[in-house]
Amino acid sequence: MFALALVCALAFTTTVSLAADPLPSWNDTAPKKAIVAFVEKVIKEGSPDFVPVPERIATFDNDGTLWAEQPMYFQFFFALDRVKALAPQHPEWKTKEPFASLLKGDVQGALAGGERAMLEIVMATHTGITTTEFEQIVKDWLATAKHPKTNRPYTEMVYQPMLELLAYLRANGFKTFIVSGGGIEFMRPWTEKVYGIPPERVIGSSIKTRFEIRDGKPVLVRLPELNFIDDKTGKPVGINSHIGRRPIAAFGNSDGDHQMLQYTAAGGAARFCLLVHHTDGEREWAYDRNSSIGRLDKALDEAQAKGWTVVDMKNDWKVIYPFEKR
Amino acid sequence: MFALALVCALAFTTTVSLAADPLPSWNDTAPKKAIVAFVEKVIKEGSPDFVPVPERIATFDNDGTLWAEQPMYFQFFFALDRVKALAPQHPEWKTKEPFASLLKGDVQGALAGGERAMLEIVMATHTGITTTEFEQIVKDWLATAKHPKTNRPYTEMVYQPMLELLAYLRANGFKTFIVSGGGIEFMRPWTEKVYGIPPERVIGSSIKTRFEIRDGKPVLVRLPELNFIDDKTGKPVGINSHIGRRPIAAFGNSDGDHQMLQYTAAGGAARFCLLVHHTDGEREWAYDRNSSIGRLDKALDEAQAKGWTVVDMKNDWKVIYPFEKR
Repeated sequence: MFALALVCALAFTTTVSLAADPLPSWNDTAPKKAIVAFVEKVIKEGSPDFVPVPERIATFDNDGTLWAEQPMYFQFFFALDRVKALAPQHPEWKTKEPFASLLKGDVQGALAGGERAMLEIVMATHTGITTTEFEQIVKDWLATAKHPKTNRPYTEMVYQPMLELLAYLRANGFKTFIVSGGGIEFMRPWTEKVYGIPPERVIGSSIKTRFEIRDGKPVLVRLPELNFIDDKTGKPVGINSHIGRRPIAAFGNSDGDHQMLQYTAAGGAARFCLLVHHTDGEREWAYDRNSSIGRLDKALDEAQAKGWTVVDMKNDWKVIYPFEKR
Repeated sequence: MFALALVCALAFTTTVSLAADPLPSWNDTAPKKAIVAFVEKVIKEGSPDFVPVPERIATFDNDGTLWAEQPMYFQFFFALDRVKALAPQHPEWKTKEPFASLLKGDVQGALAGGERAMLEIVMATHTGITTTEFEQIVKDWLATAKHPKTNRPYTEMVYQPMLELLAYLRANGFKTFIVSGGGIEFMRPWTEKVYGIPPERVIGSSIKTRFEIRDGKPVLVRLPELNFIDDKTGKPVGINSHIGRRPIAAFGNSDGDHQMLQYTAAGGAARFCLLVHHTDGEREWAYDRNSSIGRLDKALDEAQAKGWTVVDMKNDWKVIYPFEKR
């Protein structure tokens, strides 16, 4: 068996290294070259930058890094639909902000409270049910909801170049994790199918849950109480809590990812930090320093100062979404 | 390549199924038969009990299930040594319980407060340093500390039959997780080496951490504030938080594991729940309903009522520790 095992191992190694371009949707510009150079460096046994397989941890932000986040975080569209669905059970929302504005169709008014207000709406519309019930609600919503601009299902508005990057890293022994400010249980029902990332490799913001026996069956009830905000300084905390190892590569697009990239960069010699810069107003959206969603300002300054890789979506990506290829 | 890949896949499949007994330290009694029957059932494609690989989640308690827990939780021995090491910096401990008793050598007096008091001591001695510093302290302690009865390093006091079970499950596509009341960062420095379980598959009790830039470097500081107690009803909560899927198999030894087993059993058709019953006062320790550590009472009643598997350590295990085999 050992000889056959060796043949098989060599065969697969050869397959990987001789395979066609693993990043076909990336132009041959600096970011692609930097990614490939980093991966080849850390997988090369005997090299000073070699990283053993178990330590090849790569963390990805979700909103604006793996899928789009304009004109609002997609989870917020879900929350709006939930507000409408739940309004009959919550008469108090008629006079209570930000719900009152939402129910009048004034999304901008509700958004005035910023990201914190958004999170509040999300929490208020995501609780009082079991984890199993919530999972089904998310799945049902994704099956029918459409993005207001593209009229596509939200799970089709993922970035093709990033799907290729996830697969490329995994083919080289990396474990890929999501580390998002979005709700952990909003992402888990679909990340395995869409990104190849199973629930246990998804880290996000969360509310508290409580174990109960209901009708003789053990369930977890979602409580209207914040547990953890996985954003900014929370991202390294979430990474430590869920992974217990510092990533060797981190991918983000906003100041919400700044500390995750700092934490990753400080881990040792061969480290890789990348920011997706939204520069394509035609195929996607163009925004950075002045955007209320996905603001990229301080992290962009540090990326330039430290030589982190910055993807210029307009010039570095051949396609944005998978459906463009069809 | 496809043909070779197929040959390789078949070759390895055959290796697994024709391999020698994967559980050689288990007697051919009911528990071993139940384990093998369960595994063969869920991995058989086309069977009504078939479970796809990504959903083959198995969760293991640690203290008393994977390694010993007498005469005290091993982490508590670590905490005692930390109390002695830190006492000069904490003059207030001389008059403050439970530290005062500990410093006088009166462990029983300190233990009077029960598991909560233990946790308090653990927390007080585990904070104020960075996560990286704590990891090193744990490693240094494990390298020299010896168990008071066997005079063996603590990491040698793991159960050989359970090591075989972990490997057997992983060889059949299971993901093995630890779900322990012990400190998550006390376990992670050594679980990969000892159990083959990497840090990201370790769930435990935790304190809060805070992201800081110290001397220009990003670190996580361990705060003297409880974050989560991963015990009893906390275990299903921790499982949901870290794994996001209900286990199909769960392994414990005490009432602290009761809700984890209930939660697992309620998940569907093919589910497996096992309790390690400490019945071997000669080779290990004999304790159950009246023990202050690892009390097994209500869970044992439910195991008997529901037909969960109960391991009688004395009669079902050929050896307890790996060093007995040498």
